[in-house]
Amino acid sequence: MSERIQLAHGSGGKLSHDLVREVMLPAFANAALAEMHDGAKVTAGGARLAFTTDSYVVKPLFFAGGDIGKLAVCGTVNDLAMTGAVPLYLSAGFIIEEGFAIDDLRRIVVSMRRAADEAGVAIVTGDTKVVEKGAVDGLYINTAGVGVLLDGVDISPRRVRPGQDIILSGPIGDHAIAIMSERHGLTLPASVTSDCAPLAGLVKAILTAVPDGVAVLRDPTRGGIATTLNEIASQAQVGIFLDETAIPVRPAVQAVCEILGFDPLYLANEGKMLVFVEQVFTEQVLNIMNAHPYGREARVIGRVTAQPAGQVGLRTAIGGMRLLDMLVGDQLPRIC
Amino acid sequence: MSERIQLAHGSGGKLSHDLVREVMLPAFANAALAEMHDGAKVTAGGARLAFTTDSYVVKPLFFAGGDIGKLAVCGTVNDLAMTGAVPLYLSAGFIIEEGFAIDDLRRIVVSMRRAADEAGVAIVTGDTKVVEKGAVDGLYINTAGVGVLLDGVDISPRRVRPGQDIILSGPIGDHAIAIMSERHGLTLPASVTSDCAPLAGLVKAILTAVPDGVAVLRDPTRGGIATTLNEIASQAQVGIFLDETAIPVRPAVQAVCEILGFDPLYLANEGKMLVFVEQVFTEQVLNIMNAHPYGREARVIGRVTAQPAGQVGLRTAIGGMRLLDMLVGDQLPRIC
Repeated sequence: MSERIQLAHGSGGKLSHDLVREVMLPAFANAALAEMHDGAKVTAGGARLAFTTDSYVVKPLFFAGGDIGKLAVCGTVNDLAMTGAVPLYLSAGFIIEEGFAIDDLRRIVVSMRRAADEAGVAIVTGDTKVVEKGAVDGLYINTAGVGVLLDGVDISPRRVRPGQDIILSGPIGDHAIAIMSERHGLTLPASVTSDCAPLAGLVKAILTAVPDGVAVLRDPTRGGIATTLNEIASQAQVGIFLDETAIPVRPAVQAVCEILGFDPLYLANEGKMLVFVEQVFTEQVLNIMNAHPYGREARVIGRVTAQPAGQVGLRTAIGGMRLLDMLVGDQLPRIC
Repeated sequence: MSERIQLAHGSGGKLSHDLVREVMLPAFANAALAEMHDGAKVTAGGARLAFTTDSYVVKPLFFAGGDIGKLAVCGTVNDLAMTGAVPLYLSAGFIIEEGFAIDDLRRIVVSMRRAADEAGVAIVTGDTKVVEKGAVDGLYINTAGVGVLLDGVDISPRRVRPGQDIILSGPIGDHAIAIMSERHGLTLPASVTSDCAPLAGLVKAILTAVPDGVAVLRDPTRGGIATTLNEIASQAQVGIFLDETAIPVRPAVQAVCEILGFDPLYLANEGKMLVFVEQVFTEQVLNIMNAHPYGREARVIGRVTAQPAGQVGLRTAIGGMRLLDMLVGDQLPRIC
């Protein structure tokens, strides 16, 4: 490993994994952390809980479809939901640059409250630090979240098995392209805004109907669906085959990707999820998702196979096959 | 309120309170937050939990008696302990500047693990963001924590009543003066190092012995004991009288304060606590504290009175009386 932190160590891709595996995991070593899911499953006072955290450093702070506050609530709510939990409580830690406009802070906390209301969570504790001009770029927010694991639900990469279908909840890349276009002054069709949304309601609807038919849920944020699926293939030691023609990408997102050389499979999403489901439940889960505002465009994009263990293959639109690796490098720093 | 964030909005003093009261509380409004304690008390899956968060932006990252990692673990452990909880789980969110030395990161996470082991908590979930050079000053860490509230214990400013004694666990100002001297290259006696320490064991010993004799526990961090006691006097609408001669301050800390114009009553501590105890239990609690490494120098420094409601008075060493206000302005930015 390089001796200094590079931007790619925060990409969510290969270098992020290396850093966590080589520095954090050996130091913190414990069973809950070793599961390496979006959140930890723990027991406290007899309750089965999920606990997770994320810091948000997105640039710019306001963008089409959301802002850092909405992102900070939805991101952590979604990490809890992906463990099979009902999110209940959030914390909010603000690190603010001296000179930051208080009106902007007001807009952001109001946006947090609105997202929290939609997600059914309360922001119950917080902290504010102010640092001198230049010691932070405007405002960063950390949220941590606590939820209660749904009874009878066991979401874990261990349960991924050949034959399961992989459902994607909707088009990919919207968040990354929305941020990108704000940052570079590109004009996009109004249809392309960040997909930032709380998925807890959709997850609860699925898991209540099919408590033991879902092996894993994951929201493909940094690193995109290619990185998330590689993580699962590696953890479960299964193969994953994707059908490129089945993966929904909005035309405007595809167009920006072609111009700028991005691959949508590696772009961050903030309101999408992948569902690994036993085939016998696929239709039922799809019907539930399609009936929900955040799953209207859900569809099966691939399936789990026995081989090649630990790898993700893509059948391309022109009929070829290529292996998808994790994100290497960093397409878009500070995307969330 | 000024229209832009000032450093003093992060001081833990008056402007911090104004910001929270005028911006965060109205937006997030809920009962758990309104309690305004070091952590929120919540119920999840039938369990009575404490939940809290803090971000750490201390400068420099390494100092006599600790580092940002130890601070990030102890600070959040202590906030949980002050609610009357046994801390169990921590999250860790890192925001790292591009170019940061990975060896320094290793030292910091090892230090976090060591502090977590001493406190009896596990770091079970985390997040790492990397921002470009200049977008953060080295490394900031957020920790959030979850604990289980001790049975039969109800720590709350509502329970503060005239006649209760106020115990301080040891000398004040060590952390602030240790940071200060690192920052300015001052040479101090080896006895003055940060007091950064996890107080969960001490709290558990007290509350197990005297579950209903303690009204409030608080660790006087940013803003010092003067600010913390003002918060309690205001929340409980009681008077607080302190005896200056009873408040322990190390001679070297006192000397630096006199040279630089600091008042130790407003300096941050990271391993001290204030205990509001019914007088009938004072001796028992003092004995427990004095037998513990982090309470050896504990003593009664004042008492609760009916009047003047909401105010803190100090009987000075020369026999006068003065009112202590909350910290106004910011003596030492980025102290934690």
